Amino acid sequence: MFTPIKTPKVYDQVIEQIKSKIKSGEIKKGDRLPSEREMAESLSVSRTSVREAIKALEVIGLVESKQGAGNYIRTDFHNSLFEPLSVMFMLQESSLKEMYDLRETLELQCAKLAATNIKDTEIDFLTVILDRMYEAESEEESLELDIKFHYLLAKASRNVLLINVLEVISQLMDEFIKASRMKILHEGNSRESLLEIHENLVKALKIRDEVKVCNAMQEHFDLIRKAYKYDK
Amino acid sequence: MFTPIKTPKVYDQVIEQIKSKIKSGEIKKGDRLPSEREMAESLSVSRTSVREAIKALEVIGLVESKQGAGNYIRTDFHNSLFEPLSVMFMLQESSLKEMYDLRETLELQCAKLAATNIKDTEIDFLTVILDRMYEAESEEESLELDIKFHYLLAKASRNVLLINVLEVISQLMDEFIKASRMKILHEGNSRESLLEIHENLVKALKIRDEVKVCNAMQEHFDLIRKAYKYDK
Repeated sequence: MFTPIKTPKVYDQVIEQIKSKIKSGEIKKGDRLPSEREMAESLSVSRTSVREAIKALEVIGLVESKQGAGNYIRTDFHNSLFEPLSVMFMLQESSLKEMYDLRETLELQCAKLAATNIKDTEIDFLTVILDRMYEAESEEESLELDIKFHYLLAKASRNVLLINVLEVISQLMDEFIKASRMKILHEGNSRESLLEIHENLVKALKIRDEVKVCNAMQEHFDLIRKAYKYDK
Repeated sequence: MFTPIKTPKVYDQVIEQIKSKIKSGEIKKGDRLPSEREMAESLSVSRTSVREAIKALEVIGLVESKQGAGNYIRTDFHNSLFEPLSVMFMLQESSLKEMYDLRETLELQCAKLAATNIKDTEIDFLTVILDRMYEAESEEESLELDIKFHYLLAKASRNVLLINVLEVISQLMDEFIKASRMKILHEGNSRESLLEIHENLVKALKIRDEVKVCNAMQEHFDLIRKAYKYDK
C-alpha cells in the first residue's frame, strides 16, 4: 500500500526558522522581527506564507503585532491562549542551576514511580543501553546513550503528565545532559563513576526497590551538583 | 493619556470556544471538528475567521487537516512545532493520582527553594493570606486563598522554569486543589488541620529552615495522599 506523502508546508518552515533563531539566542524577548517583505525575500518564500506564519505565532501569543510598527516577540506570555512552553524556556535564558533544580525534582519522581511501574522488557532495554555505554568509543556515543537511558526511565514512570513535561523541555534537557557530562568528566571524575551510577540504578530497578532506586538517582544528581559546586 | 483599545480578535474567540470544549471533555483526541461552514454558522462568524483559527491550531500541532476529510484533533503531539502543554494535559484525561504525583514533586521543590529565596515581603503576604484563611466564612473563599497561597510560594522559589510549568498546568492545578480540599474535608479532617499545615509552612519559612519547610510541605501532601488512600 501507498502512504500519503506529506509535503512540508511553507509557513511551517518559516516558523521553524524563527524558532531556531530563538533557540540560538539570535532573537530575544521584545525584539522586532524583520518586515514581512524582508523576511519573504531572505527566505525566498511568498509574503502570504510569511503572513500565515506570523499570524499563527500571534495566535499562540508568541508574537505581538503593533499597528504600523511591525511584529515583536512578546515580553510576557501570561494569558497566551496556548503556551509554547519550550519556547518560553528558550526566551527566558534560564540558568543551568534552574534547569538543574527542575530536572532533579522531575527525574527523582520518575525514578521513584519507575521502581513500581517499570516493565521487565524496559529493564532489559536499560541493561542493553548500559552495556553499550560501557562499550561506547566516543563521548558523542556515550552522550546519546545517556540521553536514551534517562528518557526510557521517564517513560517507565507511566505518568503521562510527567513524561509530557519532560518531553516539552527535552530540547533544553539534551543540552543540559551534555553540559553536565562534560562538567562531571572535566572535574576529574572518571567515565567509570558515571557508568557505575547508571549501573546502580538498573540494579535497584531490577529488584524494584524504591528506596534504592531513589538513592541511586540522588547519587547521580549529587555528582552533578558537586561538579557545578551547587549548595545542597 | 489614552491607551489603545484592544478589540478581541474573532479567531481568538473561535479558538477559545474550541479550547473550552476540550477542557469540558466534549471534544476528545481523534475527534473530527464540524465543517468550517457549520462552525461559522453556529458561532455566527465568518468562514475566514474559522479558517484562521483552524490554521493556527494546525500550526501548533493540535489539529490535523486531512485532505477532503475535514479537520481532526490529533491523537499524538510528538514533533508538534509548539506544544500546547495545558491542552495536551486536558486531552490526556490523566488520573488525579498522576496529577498528585506531579504536583507533589513540583511543590516540594518550590518549597525547598523558597526556604532560601523567599523575600520578607512575601512572608508578610503569606501571613496575611493565612490570617484571611482563618477568617474565611465560606469554602469558596477558603479555596481561593488556598490557591493564592500555593502560587505565592511557587513564585518565591525564584526558579522561572518551575514557575512556568506550574503556571501552564494551573488550570488543572486549580481543579486539583479544589478536589483535594473537598476530599480532605470529606474524610473527616477538620478545616483546622488544613489551616495548621499552612501555618507550619509559614512558620518554617519565617526562620528560613529548609528541612522544616520541606517537612511541612510533605505533611501537606501526606494529608492529601491519605485522603485519597494512595500508597506511599
